[in-house]
Amino acid sequence: MEMNFDKLDGLIPAVIQDAQTSEVLMVGFMNQEAWEKTLQTRKAHFFSRTRNRLWMKGETSGHVQEVERIIIDCDEDSVVLKVRQVGGSACHTGKRSCFYRDEKGEEIDGAA
Amino acid sequence: MEMNFDKLDGLIPAVIQDAQTSEVLMVGFMNQEAWEKTLQTRKAHFFSRTRNRLWMKGETSGHVQEVERIIIDCDEDSVVLKVRQVGGSACHTGKRSCFYRDEKGEEIDGAA
Repeated sequence: MEMNFDKLDGLIPAVIQDAQTSEVLMVGFMNQEAWEKTLQTRKAHFFSRTRNRLWMKGETSGHVQEVERIIIDCDEDSVVLKVRQVGGSACHTGKRSCFYRDEKGEEIDGAA
Repeated sequence: MEMNFDKLDGLIPAVIQDAQTSEVLMVGFMNQEAWEKTLQTRKAHFFSRTRNRLWMKGETSGHVQEVERIIIDCDEDSVVLKVRQVGGSACHTGKRSCFYRDEKGEEIDGAA
């Protein structure tokens, strides 16, 4: 599959979902290189918009995301990765998921 | 919660997830107005990048997304909406989810 990177300045959003629980762990962005690295290595790679560079999730923390399934949308402009989250937490705060607050800022019970 | 619309030209990605099954149904983009309309109406609104305008999901198809929960990420730059999908399909192809193919283009079994 060829992804369409044209709609968002060379990027596509990637939804990272726990392969077992279907919890959404994080959303990242991929450029063409990050997409290809993810396909080749079966480990989630992203393009950091703030650092302006390719990175592998877990490259410093060890919290690698091992890709079990890749699912592509109808327009080829976003992907879902079903992953095994090494270390059990995807978020830099140490939480399991980056999605842990409701619209009032209250911490939620249960899974995103 | 104030969302950060600055990182992506005034937009944030919104992951739409079935509230019952946790299946990812689609990914859309919201600007400030779409975000506020979603909060006010509890129906998913997006900003169309191709049509350059606000739209409510289901405004023509009737396949409205009734928002049951809103979950915000650590950086306040993306959201998950847990929805009840009216009509049972989120995708313009008639499928339940926009995510229905793997990286080889094969239709997947089961849920995204």
